[in-house]
This record gives sequence, C-alpha cells and structure tokens, in this order.
Amino acid sequence: MSFQKLDELGRSLGALEHALAILAADEATQMAVGGGEARAEAMSALAGMHHRQTTAPEIADWLDAAENETLEPDHAAAVREFRREYTNRTCLPTEFVERQMRTRMRCEQLWRDLRPKGDWTGFLPALEGVIEFAREEAALRADATGLPPYDAMMEQFDPGNRVAEIAPLFAELKSFLVDFVPNALETQQNRLKKTPLRPLSGAYPVEKQRELGLAMMAAVGFDVTRGSLSVSHHPFCGGVPTDVRITTRYRSNEFLSALMGTLHETGHALYEQNLPTEWAHWPLGKARGMAMHESQSLFVEKQIGRNPAFWEWALPVVEKHLGERWERDEILAHVHYVERGLIRVDADEVTYPLHVILRFEIEQELIDGSLAAKDLPEAWDARMRDFLGLSTMDTPQDGPMQDVHWPSGAFGYFPSYTLGAVIAAQQWAAIEREMPDVNQQIARGDFEAVNAWRRKHVWSQASLWTTPELVERSTGEPLNVARFRRHLEKRYGA
Amino acid sequence: MSFQKLDELGRSLGALEHALAILAADEATQMAVGGGEARAEAMSALAGMHHRQTTAPEIADWLDAAENETLEPDHAAAVREFRREYTNRTCLPTEFVERQMRTRMRCEQLWRDLRPKGDWTGFLPALEGVIEFAREEAALRADATGLPPYDAMMEQFDPGNRVAEIAPLFAELKSFLVDFVPNALETQQNRLKKTPLRPLSGAYPVEKQRELGLAMMAAVGFDVTRGSLSVSHHPFCGGVPTDVRITTRYRSNEFLSALMGTLHETGHALYEQNLPTEWAHWPLGKARGMAMHESQSLFVEKQIGRNPAFWEWALPVVEKHLGERWERDEILAHVHYVERGLIRVDADEVTYPLHVILRFEIEQELIDGSLAAKDLPEAWDARMRDFLGLSTMDTPQDGPMQDVHWPSGAFGYFPSYTLGAVIAAQQWAAIEREMPDVNQQIARGDFEAVNAWRRKHVWSQASLWTTPELVERSTGEPLNVARFRRHLEKRYGA
Repeated sequence: MSFQKLDELGRSLGALEHALAILAADEATQMAVGGGEARAEAMSALAGMHHRQTTAPEIADWLDAAENETLEPDHAAAVREFRREYTNRTCLPTEFVERQMRTRMRCEQLWRDLRPKGDWTGFLPALEGVIEFAREEAALRADATGLPPYDAMMEQFDPGNRVAEIAPLFAELKSFLVDFVPNALETQQNRLKKTPLRPLSGAYPVEKQRELGLAMMAAVGFDVTRGSLSVSHHPFCGGVPTDVRITTRYRSNEFLSALMGTLHETGHALYEQNLPTEWAHWPLGKARGMAMHESQSLFVEKQIGRNPAFWEWALPVVEKHLGERWERDEILAHVHYVERGLIRVDADEVTYPLHVILRFEIEQELIDGSLAAKDLPEAWDARMRDFLGLSTMDTPQDGPMQDVHWPSGAFGYFPSYTLGAVIAAQQWAAIEREMPDVNQQIARGDFEAVNAWRRKHVWSQASLWTTPELVERSTGEPLNVARFRRHLEKRYGA
Repeated sequence: MSFQKLDELGRSLGALEHALAILAADEATQMAVGGGEARAEAMSALAGMHHRQTTAPEIADWLDAAENETLEPDHAAAVREFRREYTNRTCLPTEFVERQMRTRMRCEQLWRDLRPKGDWTGFLPALEGVIEFAREEAALRADATGLPPYDAMMEQFDPGNRVAEIAPLFAELKSFLVDFVPNALETQQNRLKKTPLRPLSGAYPVEKQRELGLAMMAAVGFDVTRGSLSVSHHPFCGGVPTDVRITTRYRSNEFLSALMGTLHETGHALYEQNLPTEWAHWPLGKARGMAMHESQSLFVEKQIGRNPAFWEWALPVVEKHLGERWERDEILAHVHYVERGLIRVDADEVTYPLHVILRFEIEQELIDGSLAAKDLPEAWDARMRDFLGLSTMDTPQDGPMQDVHWPSGAFGYFPSYTLGAVIAAQQWAAIEREMPDVNQQIARGDFEAVNAWRRKHVWSQASLWTTPELVERSTGEPLNVARFRRHLEKRYGA
C-alpha cells in the first residue's frame, strides 16, 4: 500500500519532470526572445512544486513502511532508489537551498559578465560565497549520508563514487598521461611530416550537414520516431525518453564538429531511449548517473565514432551527403588530432582527462578548506604547468574562470567526465572480448550487436546498481584505467 | 492576507498553465510521433494538479475573507474573477467530471472514426450519452450560478451571455440573412459575369508564403520578439502571452487560405500579447472569453484583412514576396467570395452566422430536453433547408456529425463565433466614428491608431468586465446586430 503511494508520487513527479524537460528544450530551440522572464518564472514555480512533492514529510513514512513490506524484487529496488532520492533531496534545509540558490545565480550571472573580460578580482568575492555554501552543503550531505564530505557531493551525480577508489585511478592516469601526451604529440608530428593534414574544403551547407547527421544518428540506433534533431547555441541532449531532443550547431566551413557533436549527443539519446519503459515513472527507471551517461555518449563519439573501422563505413555516407571524397587516413588525421590546450571543452580525448584531474584535485582542497578561493589562480597554474606545460596566470578566463560548474555550485561533477571515458573503454574492451569481429561489424555499418550488448548490460539496468556495481557487472571487471590507457596507446601511441 | 494567498495561488496555477500551453504547442509542432502517450499522461497529470489546486476547499475561505477585506480596485476585481473561476470549476462533483470525461473521450474517438463514414447509427448511442451528461451538467451549473441551464453553460465561455439577450439578436440576424444570402449571391453572379474570377497561378512556394505571412503579421502589430509562426495540421494560436505560438498550414497551389488563416490567428495573438502584464497571473488578467477573443481574430481577418483599403497596401507586399501582381478588385473577388455550403468551418462571413444560429437553436432544445438526439438529423436538415436551401438528410457527416464540439461535450460554445463577428463589426463602427480616416490609414499599412484603440478599449481591459459590459463600454452601444448587418450590406450588397 505504501508502495502504491510512492508509485503515484512517481507519476506526479514524472509529469513535472516531463514539463521541465520539454520547457527547457523548447527554451533553447523555439522560445521567442521575449518569453524568457515568464518561462523562468514558470519553470521555477514548477521546480518548486517538484521540490515540495519530493521532500514531503509523509514520504519518509511511506518509505519506512515500504521498506518493511514484502515486495517484488523490482519494487524493492524502486523503493531503494526512492529512498536515495529522498535522502539526497531532504538533506539540505529549504531555507539553506534558497539562500544558496540566490548566491549561485548571482555568481553565475557575474561569471557570464566577467569571464570574457578575465576579471578575476571582480569575480572572486562571488565565487568565495559559492564555495562557502558548497563546504556547508558537503557537510550537510556528509551528515545525511554518513560519507566523507566530497564523497557526499559526488554521490548526487554518481551513486557509489568514492575518492578512496577514484583518487588512485586518477593518479595512475595522470602519471601515465603526463608522459604519454608528449609521445602522442611527437608521433603525430612525425606522421604529419610524412603526410600533411588535408584541409577541409570549407563549403558544407547546413542543410546537407543536417541530413548527414540524421543519417548517422539513425544508423547508430537513434529511434527517429521517439526523438528529433534541431539547432541550439549550446548542443545538448534533452527532452524525455519517448521524445529525446538532440541539438547541435553548424559551421558551414567545416563539418566534423557538428557531426562528432551529434554522435556524442546520440550516445546520450540511445541510453534514454532504451531505458526500461515499465520503470519510467520511478527513480529506478532513470539513467544511473552522470559518469554512466557520459560513458554512453563517449562510447558513440570516441569508441565508435573515432574508430578507424567506423570510417570505412562512414566515408561513403559523408560523400553521399556532402559530395566530398575522403580517404580513411585523411579523416583520421582530423578526428585523432591531439593538441595541448587551455580549455577543457575543446580538448581531445588524450589531454581531456588531465583537465578533469586538475579540477578533481583542486575541488577536494576547496571543499576540505585546505585551499582558499583567492589562491585558485596559482593552484591552477601550477598544475596546468605540471600536467600540460601551459600557464594560465595571466588569463584567468582560460584558467579557473573557464567553466560554469563552480559559479553554479556543481562541485563533485567533474570526475564524471573522465570516469565516463574510462568506463566506455572498459565497455569496448568487454565487447571486443565477446565479439572479436566487432570492428568488421562496424566497418559495414552494423551496430546491432554492439547495441544489443549495451541494451542488455547497461541501458536495461537503469538505476538497479550503483555506478561501480554497474561497471563491474557490465564489463566483468572493477573500475580501472588499464583499458582506457590501452585504448589511448593503441590509437595515439607510436 | 487572504488576497496574498490568492495571489500566490495564481502564480502556481500560472506556471501549470504555462507548461500546459507550451506542451500543447510543442505537441502540435515539434513532438516526435512516438512521444504522444507519455505526453498525454504528463499533461493529464498536470491538468489534475491544476484542477486540485483550483478547487481546493481552502480557496472558498480565502475568497470569503478577501471579499470582506478593503482592497484596491484592481485587487477587488481580481477577487471577483477568482470567485467566478472557482464557482465554474467547483460546481461539478469530481466524480461527475471523471465519468463525463470518459464518456466524452469515447464519443470523440468514435466521432473521429465514424464521421468519415457518415455512420450516424453507430455514433448516436455515444452522442446520447454525452448529451445526457450535458443536461446534467447544465442543471448543476444552473444550481451553482442561479442562471437558467443553457445560460449557465454559456457562462463558462462568455461571462454575461444570456439567451434572453442573444436569442432576439440571432433571430433578427437570421431573418435578415435568409433574405440577404440570395441577394448577395445574385450580386456576385452579376459581377462575375462582367469580370470572371482570375484564377490563382498555383505556384506559391511554402517558404515564400511563410515570409509573406510573417511580414503581414509584423505589419498588423504582432510582436515578433514575443511570439512565432510555425506549421501544424490544424492552425491555432497557443502558447503564452509573452511567447504566442501561431501556426498555419500551406498549400503550394494557393496562398489565400494560409494568409487569411495567419491574419485570423494574428488577431488572437494581438489580444494575448497586449493583455496587461501586471495582472498576468490572475484570472482577471486573461482575455475575457471566447466571443471577445473571436472578435479580435475576426477583426483582423475580416474587418481589416478583407477590407478593400487593406489590399491597397497589401498587394505590393504580396507581389514582393510571391512575385505576382494582382489588381485590388481581382483579389477582392476571391476574398469576398460567397457560397452556400454545408460545412461551417468552410463558410464565408455572410453564410457563417446561419450555421451558428442553427446550432444555437438546436443546442437549447437538446439541453432543455425538447429534442432527442435521435431526432437530430431531421431537426438539422429542416433548418438547413430553411436557412440555406440545402439538405443533409443523406450525409450526416455534413450535418450533425460535422463538428467536434458536441462529441467533446462543448455545449454553449457555438454562439461565441457569431457574437465575435457581431462584436468586431461594432468595434469597427466605433473606430470609424472616432477616426473617419481609418481606411486611409489602413490603405497605407498604418495600423497604429486602430491598435491603440483596441489596446485602450479591449486588450487592456482583460477580464475587468462581463462580455456584454465590455462590448458596451468599448463600442459605446449595447450588443446589437445592426453594425454587422450594415457591414455585410456594404461589402456584399447590390
């Protein structure tokens, strides 16, 4: 009976989440410019209703009762995830959340304004306020979950992520990459000396690129009856599982950024579209978390989309849509291009983890209080020089001001990006073990067996397991960086 | 203090209405085909939340208290409209609403299925069920409002509409039109004998038509920063006042239906875009009702868009976008074309009121029980022969099965269409009295003074007055059909 109440609650919350997801997608793609203020008010009121419904005190009674009922296994699992969500949502006092939200929003607005100017001094006081709140938040979450503070922050995004397990893996990866990046760059330089990069012709009409993107999406498994592709300034994958909204943006002088971006978002979309429908209105039915979600997008973008075998099949499709013929190695020189850079979102798959590890290390010090916000530029610069040999001392906009995460208060999120890459490599390795001919399948544009594996081991599992459990159950080995290292060595090594 | 509670309620309801409006527009224009089921579930859950919030018993206490508080005039007016909405929403028991909804939905589904087949016998039992509910609903609404049953039904759509006032006006209009239609047809025939209709060339690319539509919308006052135009199967004006979504559909072989449809929806949009923003989250801030809303769409479509002066300005715009030159009288022969027909939605402005009056007369008999559903085909046919000299005895799909209103239970709505036309003519007459040069303004594409009049007298008034009060205050005379008669005589007479 208590389960029945949780089930009804799930439907009601599902309706609000459906509305919020579609309103957000609509805002980015359809909304009139003057509609923003009323939209923000409406979404904030709907989010308020969602918050009140998810944190209602009677839910604690329903959960207590349901935990003592004899339930079918999937109902029991559903109760566990209802409990997790309830704990995560009720551990902060409403009054705290409201004060924190105001501080975050002011800091984020200030960031939008001051980042282009690189005005660190103007930005610092607002960031200090956000970090103060984040420390308090971490302490409150630690109290509620019994976890160390930074673990309690990560727990929101990836249940089961623990510094004790991740820190050694990231340390191993860091020490590997600090050596590997120069090697990969040298290998690349030698190759480019022999065969210079063939430049893109620069005339790629948007409509043609869109058709190419749609053809690729459908080929890798996107269900076009339950989703769509449109344009927005910041590409995203949003909407709801029965109507997934992918967006991209096009530059008419090159086609690879929109195409690879579309493949990335398609990876997210496949996860959403293939979640078990019978659990759709429970937290149990949602995608497991940010790291697992990123593993799905990176699986399509990097493991498939940057795989040489993929381009055997893809180049004729590109030629069909864009009327331009490329050799496999010519295009691989573009999609495997490695470069030291200051900006995380522009980084390639070799250097990207170093950007994340830098933030992971710094965030822990910010949360435990051993680093003050005012010392961020030095701390950032020191690591940036160690990791990639670059300095950001004079350009804070390319240093600690580059991401929206900290101004918006999202501490504990960054690790998910690199964990996603690590997990995707483990998944690929597991698939290769099980299907030694997987590259031949992909070379002929056949993604069915790969997707069947992913559906069985990842998508259908939704939130049945913690992130580390799901990694181990799906790939047959605990979270480890060996597969990702080997992946990089194979693709970028000498 | 009680007003404060109503004010907060208004914001919460406003958020749900915002979500429902945008989700509905999205469904018609963006949603993936497979997204329908989850969308219907989400919208029905949101509508349920809205219903629970609008009918909460504590609102009665807030209203009682607020009605005894000393309030600013606009707050007092807001309370009056909160009360009206509360009465309209709480006068039906929830259990009744649920049973009625099931009956309506079954009947509407059956109607979609059986109308194309003209299967009256198959459809009748379902319609009988809906009519039974409508009679009961009218009785319940009569109890709650102290109005006669059919008045109580109309009250939902147009506060203040009363049979005692409308029936004599419609009788006058009917007797006028029964004579006037043959005269207008004869006048038209004589004119066409002299100057035959110039056929449309038939090659109007959709993109060009869209640009023409957008140009016309902007010219007549549509704020493109707070709204947009897109395509849907059934044209509508939806969204929210800060982001009005107009849709149309295009046929590439002619441009007038999309253009006139766009002008019609633009009329609705202007009303929404110009409602007073400070009242936006109260019922008081909404458009007055269906008749007044239709007066705004018909004002733009008929009073402006079919005005010969309008085409002085519009034809060069058409030429610019479509590359086709028309003389004013050539286009007027199209946009003033009159024809006896069976289908209301295809009717011109001369014959349209007869379709509505037929339904108005029949509906009253259905609600008061003097006509049984099984006798509808004969009752319909008899009036159709009297009014327009046409028979529908053998084609019920063109008779009592033609509209969705009855299957969906919307009794009391039809009068609004013709009241809208009548009110638009009164408004035009008032404007002409005040601005004798209005036609010259329109002939040069200057709609500012006309819109300023409408903003002052109609749009800014929102729901401050009942429909008849608003008509009289804005036009200086009570609701009457004389202006509309003169309008038709002038445009279509000998």
